[in-house]
Amino acid sequence: MSATLGLIGVGNLGEQFMLRCHKLGRRVVAYDKFAKKKIPEKIRAESIFELTRSTKIVVSFVPNDTALRSVVSELLPLQEEIFHISCSTVSPHLSRELAYAHKKSGHKFVAAPVFARPENLRDGQACFILSGATEDVQIARKYLHDLAEKVVDFGSDPGAANVVKLAGNFMIASSIELIAEALALVEKNGVDRQLTMGLMSSTIFNCPIFKGYGHRVATRDHRPGGFALEHGLKDINLILDTANQSAQPLPLASLLQHRLRASDNFGHSHLDWSAFALRSTADGGLHHQVDLALQHAVRDDAKPKEDDRTTDPK
Amino acid sequence: MSATLGLIGVGNLGEQFMLRCHKLGRRVVAYDKFAKKKIPEKIRAESIFELTRSTKIVVSFVPNDTALRSVVSELLPLQEEIFHISCSTVSPHLSRELAYAHKKSGHKFVAAPVFARPENLRDGQACFILSGATEDVQIARKYLHDLAEKVVDFGSDPGAANVVKLAGNFMIASSIELIAEALALVEKNGVDRQLTMGLMSSTIFNCPIFKGYGHRVATRDHRPGGFALEHGLKDINLILDTANQSAQPLPLASLLQHRLRASDNFGHSHLDWSAFALRSTADGGLHHQVDLALQHAVRDDAKPKEDDRTTDPK
Repeated sequence: MSATLGLIGVGNLGEQFMLRCHKLGRRVVAYDKFAKKKIPEKIRAESIFELTRSTKIVVSFVPNDTALRSVVSELLPLQEEIFHISCSTVSPHLSRELAYAHKKSGHKFVAAPVFARPENLRDGQACFILSGATEDVQIARKYLHDLAEKVVDFGSDPGAANVVKLAGNFMIASSIELIAEALALVEKNGVDRQLTMGLMSSTIFNCPIFKGYGHRVATRDHRPGGFALEHGLKDINLILDTANQSAQPLPLASLLQHRLRASDNFGHSHLDWSAFALRSTADGGLHHQVDLALQHAVRDDAKPKEDDRTTDPK
Repeated sequence: MSATLGLIGVGNLGEQFMLRCHKLGRRVVAYDKFAKKKIPEKIRAESIFELTRSTKIVVSFVPNDTALRSVVSELLPLQEEIFHISCSTVSPHLSRELAYAHKKSGHKFVAAPVFARPENLRDGQACFILSGATEDVQIARKYLHDLAEKVVDFGSDPGAANVVKLAGNFMIASSIELIAEALALVEKNGVDRQLTMGLMSSTIFNCPIFKGYGHRVATRDHRPGGFALEHGLKDINLILDTANQSAQPLPLASLLQHRLRASDNFGHSHLDWSAFALRSTADGGLHHQVDLALQHAVRDDAKPKEDDRTTDPK
């Protein structure tokens, strides 16, 4: 479908979405309050209002619930019908609330969080997961299908796609923890961390998460540039809020919150979120290695970029 | 190397090791106190002593530390040098102790636990991990290399290979727990378990463990026949013992012990060890589904077979 897309939020993911659209010859206008430099002048809008004069199809990539509420507060008063595809990792209940508010104001809302590292999004290897009113999901699928490898429909509850996205991030964080504990165990027993991880991720755990995060944890390379730990802490809090609202105890998620909170308190908030793996090393009394890792992590470390806030953890 | 191998322990893994040898035309004699029926008469030894009259190269596949001690107590008094390749999942400190005892008695010992489902071992897709005296590991590698896809050397500490094997089983059990919690979260939020798992295991978690156990957990199919929960509980206890002896706290392993212990108390000891995933469902108050799952699990359930005791979890 060749309609112009109005992109709100040009962080690491939004930027790659924009580049993907360019690659396919799709027309885009874009707005970002903070990351203006990333947007070529000729497609840049200076406000959400200006953006919606070019197109009524809005795709948002923002960092959290508060930012999404702020975007929506500017969309809802508009007279013409806005079709809003919300790609951010936010709470399921916010998507439900916003779907209702859009409908009430004569607009449409589809939740469409995305599983992809930024570079995968650019290369068309992302996976969008959709939920919302059936006919709206079908329309959103048409807008997105050539931009991604997969577009999966999770049904009519607008919060469903966000639940799946949070479950996925929980699975990734849990994988980091299990790798960290397993490698701490072998290291304390005199066995090489990298040899062990290489064996696992080339056999029974031969998949992107165990290869990528396995390498980071094994080598203790948690330099910033991926998904920042402070955003991981935000996500694990969202996961526990969602679990609590649905009366589901998740002891492993509680353990992850402890790890991420401790890492944040330790000053690691701007590192890659896998840095909480250092807690298992520290628990084992391997202080020297943690210190070295920290030096490694902060080497070449520009201070966290303002515009890395929508980077995705995969 | 075409020397005859003396196989001690013909459980699910030992049997497939025997079949693999037959397939390659390797000569084997075999002994098992309990699983005699699996051994063709013409290669069956009636005692360990009789077996060691045919060959001095012994490969053992037994269920636990106690069984391995028992085997070794019959090997050590022998006059001629025995070359003992120990493929069982046992504690690292037992391997260290047995390596020392073999040496003192003029024998040789190599730890060689294996990552493989039984059918993979038969098809040459297993991975043996070796540790022990350097020259002995080299000899063991020659005996094993055509029987497996990989033979990986973890160095001269005889316990190292067992540490890696326990770390691997810990990683598998942790994966079952994280899948169980993630799917409980989506289910409590009205999202389909199988659709969610299918998405994850076809994208960022596209690997054998997440495909295999993901399917079991998503469909709550924990029928016996794989690796029994009671043996998983034994392994997690070994993992925590090893962690404790090396002064490494492993909070995730402690959580797994809780899950496996609770499942064992719940009467699930003979089911596939992934049955502890039902604890997350039960924690969420989804009793009805757990009851159904249990019925599903015990349907077609022969009582646990005497000879499934050395089945491997992968």
